[in-house]
Amino acid sequence: MGERLILHEDRLFPIHPEARGVARRLYAQVKDLPIISPHGHTDPRWYAQNIAFSNPTELFLVPDHYIFRMLYSQGIPLERLGIPRTDGGETQGNPREIWRLFAEHYYLFRGTPSRLWFEHVLYFVFGIEKRLSLQTADFIYDRLEEALSRPPFRVRSLFDRFNIEVLATTDSPLDDLRHHQAIAESGWQGRVIPAFRPDAVADPEFEGFRENVRRLGEMTGEDTSDWQGYLKALAERRRFFAGMGATSTDHGFPTATTADLDPSSCRRLFEKARDGSMTADEAEIFRGQILTEMVRMSLDDGLVIQIHPGSFRNHNTPLFQKFGRDKGADIPMRTDYVKALKPLLDRFGNEAGLSVILFTLDESAYSRELAPLAGHYPLLKLGPAWWFFDSPAGMLRYKRSVFETAGFYNTVGFNDDTRAFLSIPARHDVARRVDCAYLAELVCDHRLDEDEAAEVAVDLAYNLVKASYRL
Amino acid sequence: MGERLILHEDRLFPIHPEARGVARRLYAQVKDLPIISPHGHTDPRWYAQNIAFSNPTELFLVPDHYIFRMLYSQGIPLERLGIPRTDGGETQGNPREIWRLFAEHYYLFRGTPSRLWFEHVLYFVFGIEKRLSLQTADFIYDRLEEALSRPPFRVRSLFDRFNIEVLATTDSPLDDLRHHQAIAESGWQGRVIPAFRPDAVADPEFEGFRENVRRLGEMTGEDTSDWQGYLKALAERRRFFAGMGATSTDHGFPTATTADLDPSSCRRLFEKARDGSMTADEAEIFRGQILTEMVRMSLDDGLVIQIHPGSFRNHNTPLFQKFGRDKGADIPMRTDYVKALKPLLDRFGNEAGLSVILFTLDESAYSRELAPLAGHYPLLKLGPAWWFFDSPAGMLRYKRSVFETAGFYNTVGFNDDTRAFLSIPARHDVARRVDCAYLAELVCDHRLDEDEAAEVAVDLAYNLVKASYRL
Amino acid sequence: MGERLILHEDRLFPIHPEARGVARRLYAQVKDLPIISPHGHTDPRWYAQNIAFSNPTELFLVPDHYIFRMLYSQGIPLERLGIPRTDGGETQGNPREIWRLFAEHYYLFRGTPSRLWFEHVLYFVFGIEKRLSLQTADFIYDRLEEALSRPPFRVRSLFDRFNIEVLATTDSPLDDLRHHQAIAESGWQGRVIPAFRPDAVADPEFEGFRENVRRLGEMTGEDTSDWQGYLKALAERRRFFAGMGATSTDHGFPTATTADLDPSSCRRLFEKARDGSMTADEAEIFRGQILTEMVRMSLDDGLVIQIHPGSFRNHNTPLFQKFGRDKGADIPMRTDYVKALKPLLDRFGNEAGLSVILFTLDESAYSRELAPLAGHYPLLKLGPAWWFFDSPAGMLRYKRSVFETAGFYNTVGFNDDTRAFLSIPARHDVARRVDCAYLAELVCDHRLDEDEAAEVAVDLAYNLVKASYRL
Repeated sequence: MGERLILHEDRLFPIHPEARGVARRLYAQVKDLPIISPHGHTDPRWYAQNIAFSNPTELFLVPDHYIFRMLYSQGIPLERLGIPRTDGGETQGNPREIWRLFAEHYYLFRGTPSRLWFEHVLYFVFGIEKRLSLQTADFIYDRLEEALSRPPFRVRSLFDRFNIEVLATTDSPLDDLRHHQAIAESGWQGRVIPAFRPDAVADPEFEGFRENVRRLGEMTGEDTSDWQGYLKALAERRRFFAGMGATSTDHGFPTATTADLDPSSCRRLFEKARDGSMTADEAEIFRGQILTEMVRMSLDDGLVIQIHPGSFRNHNTPLFQKFGRDKGADIPMRTDYVKALKPLLDRFGNEAGLSVILFTLDESAYSRELAPLAGHYPLLKLGPAWWFFDSPAGMLRYKRSVFETAGFYNTVGFNDDTRAFLSIPARHDVARRVDCAYLAELVCDHRLDEDEAAEVAVDLAYNLVKASYRL
Repeated sequence: MGERLILHEDRLFPIHPEARGVARRLYAQVKDLPIISPHGHTDPRWYAQNIAFSNPTELFLVPDHYIFRMLYSQGIPLERLGIPRTDGGETQGNPREIWRLFAEHYYLFRGTPSRLWFEHVLYFVFGIEKRLSLQTADFIYDRLEEALSRPPFRVRSLFDRFNIEVLATTDSPLDDLRHHQAIAESGWQGRVIPAFRPDAVADPEFEGFRENVRRLGEMTGEDTSDWQGYLKALAERRRFFAGMGATSTDHGFPTATTADLDPSSCRRLFEKARDGSMTADEAEIFRGQILTEMVRMSLDDGLVIQIHPGSFRNHNTPLFQKFGRDKGADIPMRTDYVKALKPLLDRFGNEAGLSVILFTLDESAYSRELAPLAGHYPLLKLGPAWWFFDSPAGMLRYKRSVFETAGFYNTVGFNDDTRAFLSIPARHDVARRVDCAYLAELVCDHRLDEDEAAEVAVDLAYNLVKASYRL
Repeated sequence: MGERLILHEDRLFPIHPEARGVARRLYAQVKDLPIISPHGHTDPRWYAQNIAFSNPTELFLVPDHYIFRMLYSQGIPLERLGIPRTDGGETQGNPREIWRLFAEHYYLFRGTPSRLWFEHVLYFVFGIEKRLSLQTADFIYDRLEEALSRPPFRVRSLFDRFNIEVLATTDSPLDDLRHHQAIAESGWQGRVIPAFRPDAVADPEFEGFRENVRRLGEMTGEDTSDWQGYLKALAERRRFFAGMGATSTDHGFPTATTADLDPSSCRRLFEKARDGSMTADEAEIFRGQILTEMVRMSLDDGLVIQIHPGSFRNHNTPLFQKFGRDKGADIPMRTDYVKALKPLLDRFGNEAGLSVILFTLDESAYSRELAPLAGHYPLLKLGPAWWFFDSPAGMLRYKRSVFETAGFYNTVGFNDDTRAFLSIPARHDVARRVDCAYLAELVCDHRLDEDEAAEVAVDLAYNLVKASYRL
């Protein structure tokens, strides 16, 4: 009945015994550190309501675009995976059937981080010691379903068991943060905080932008038909978020373009955004101006700014029309930082008290642009290897390209950036292991003494994250 | 008399004994698998006529631009290497002298894949156990020349000895495939099939395009002065190629640009191509439209489409004028896929029954664009590391950048892509060894169990190639 | 009192004992070879006057933008590091205080090449066996200060002790080379030669370009208000430099753009440069034309041309205004070579007697553009991993991306490219170690025999540098 599933205690460590030994010793110091999760996409409602996850398919497959994009790429229609259609058309409704389909195609995930995360969850969260296959699909499904019905697998119990010290969600300025409010009032000790993600009211090309800006005005009592009122409304929502525990904003614009225009140009641009007469180039500049305004507002409220550029969202137009956003069809693009960030940097680049964390989906920028920028400007720090690069080889490329130029201390440790709550410890564990593997390399070729490597390992796993995100 | 030449049985395997052991075991399962060569540039006449290769210089040097580009880069004139001049000017005519020149400069190839392939051929095909040098040049030349005169070294015998199950050539739509016909009628069991490479009739900037299109009309009886007639003629030639065993087309356009224009725009564009009034930008769009038409035609004939963009052909203008095409002066260019392929993908990207195989000469696109695209669109698969990257380090970079995101099963195994018939087993051997070295890495850091790695090794070497190319 | 500082004899070598053994044997053959330093930025006055370095802070920190950019990136104002302000404003004047600040933040340099170089100097040049920290700061400062006051630490003694066979400085055409003259006349045997760096008179966007061109005219007696006179003046200064021992020129333009215009276009362009009416695009073409003229002049004087493109100089405008050039705010940019170099290559690319050495700050160009170009054109060679990439991982990426395509012999060995005289042996030692580590890899996976690797190691460390720079 299938192969045994064993998560080897030395997984992701170097093969050579000396280096493996160093990696083990370093890892021993970080493996049980609390999890700081400063950037992710889990749903605050889960924690507010202390939900139970309904079934294995709803838990692992339907929300995970890493999983279903792979299955889709091999010709399996999303309907067969139970992904809801925007037109309400029929899709597979039997979660066990979907699970079996996943199991049958499980070999597709060989060599991918999804596989590592999935098996970590099976083994450590659920104690399952069989590898998924068509033969073991029902057995595993049953075991999971049974576990999910029990209290220790409700979200708050898992949060505690996972040793999560703090976790940020990602929230729209139009969100009233009622779930965060409920968490605060519930008496539960878990620290779940919002992050301010204003794309819906800050990107003129976002669906419903004009209506969103109108609602922003309603929520804040500011006149958002006017540039100054609009800025006040944004600042007001930031203050509200900060009051609810937020320490950061997040921006998923297509490029890293920034702008620093005079007020009258801003006003004219905003008028075009408001009346819908904006060109694509103007929208680009508008978003760039917003980034600069966001940093400026941090002078007041201290929020850390995160910039996540470079994704061509919803690249697959027919699929988008049929299934909507976030269906695994976002594709990275070449991204410039050197010229794009200059207006922002000319204004705030030398502010040591502010912090902008940069991410990329264009690895060629690591050594060419990002490490040199972060290794110079007090304002800038580098976020971890992101999205497709949140993987063992992806993280090694990042480390080898970034640390020699920017050092460790212009980076911010790890983000799990996930919607998949159960995979959070798995992702942090992979990150910590790869940290230790990399550091063991430096120790064994005598670039770093082991006592220093041990400090760096703890800093990457814990201290740098807390400090960078002001947590 | 020179150093011994030894091809170590563990070459290209990891150094660490545990990983080396895994690599050996994996390799034992793939080393004797038949060779599937779905993409290459050998001459079908060779197989039709069962030729003997004339002498070592004609065999190894004159057709191999990897070899003479290196010698040329160090200041050796192509005339001294016997490369024919387009003006018929004098060149070295004594093959032994050329061979000696090669031997004298053999040190230039240290660390290159050419060296690996060449020594594999010497050792395994000809049983020569001396390293090439000025001292051993004559000895080796004599041994090779003697062997080449004997029947076991005629091309069909070698084809059988090499255990080639199927080999594709690359052919113009204007080719009557008489050599493929002759092979079919000869009673020889070797499977040599054509591939449809229409650049000469599909790229308005190809030398002689207009005349070529006229001849295409003659061959097919279609009116190729008209867009619809031209498309019919292309479809007709594809059907003819498919009837002769072809399973794929191949396109070597400078970029990956695609287009999906309405019929009247196509017609107007074609008229400009036909009367020679086309601008460079229009030619680019025309080629992009052709790619989309090619995929559309696959709905009928099932051919797999290969796109090989990104080479600046004949970059060295003075050299091109003196010696013509394919003289080692093609230089890779930065290549965009995300925006370039969108028109094609919007139309056919979700067709699970069709297949487009993408290649690149821009490694920065592996992780940023190609793996994410192939890991999502049912239409797309990734070809192997191409041309300059068909090398041990090149293949490792490919694997480490691609497999974590696209998995193994959105790739298509290995292509040898060579004109150098004798090097085919050498190239497949290098590829299989690097596959096993990479997989051994995954096994030893416990990302993949060895039973699965063994399946993947066989899939990469054999099953995926057959399936992807429908062979 | 702090940790012991030990520079392990196997630092930067592979971990596996077999590979380490090979690396050790290779390194034993190169470690004591004389240093050839064909490209660097030390001050010729030092050698002319046989200076003593004043104190540890002046020696290690103030001139080293690698060091203070890292400290600055973490919020330490340049004023506190004693960097002079252009407005003469106050800065920290106590070198010991600055040293303590450095020591306190020494952990920032973990994993960086600056750390490797610094500790090499402490240990091998000064015999210090303590790691820098706040605890050891004064002890080390005192030891260094004491040593610097003694004759063995004057620059000529160190030059001899470092076994430097030849060292090039970088000099403006407007420099009268009086220090080089003084060195020549001093009777000291050290070979210190100039290199011709004409940016100040060749880049219309350089500060003071017009005045500089006027002075060029004065120095040479040519009419530099005229294109032909200007060219004659440049040629004349090149001849003068060559007479003083120079064997190379160097060009730090923002891009690799070249041009090959007809004389009347050149004349018109030069007129615009001269009267200050030039656009940015025209300045770009002008610089491109200069590169072509520089290569043409090498037909006469034999100088090797070095092209160092891709740096966005003084990216931090406020910092530039306050502290001037070279303050760690130069940021690499994406750089094209394939189209940019074509005009130059069409004219001189096939000249085997000339030599252009290319550098890059855009690693994505290594395998895509630079190795294929250098592996074909007789004119071109590749310089070593530059600036931010002069680091262990940076050099390995270079080797793995370049050597398979261009071979070893289209590259030129190592440049230290430094202003930090004391770090020269450290930098060459790191380079030689990484060479040996890389070659050991090739030997151990049986791509290269050890006798050949030993030859290559010596070629990279010594022979190729001398030959490529005609030293």
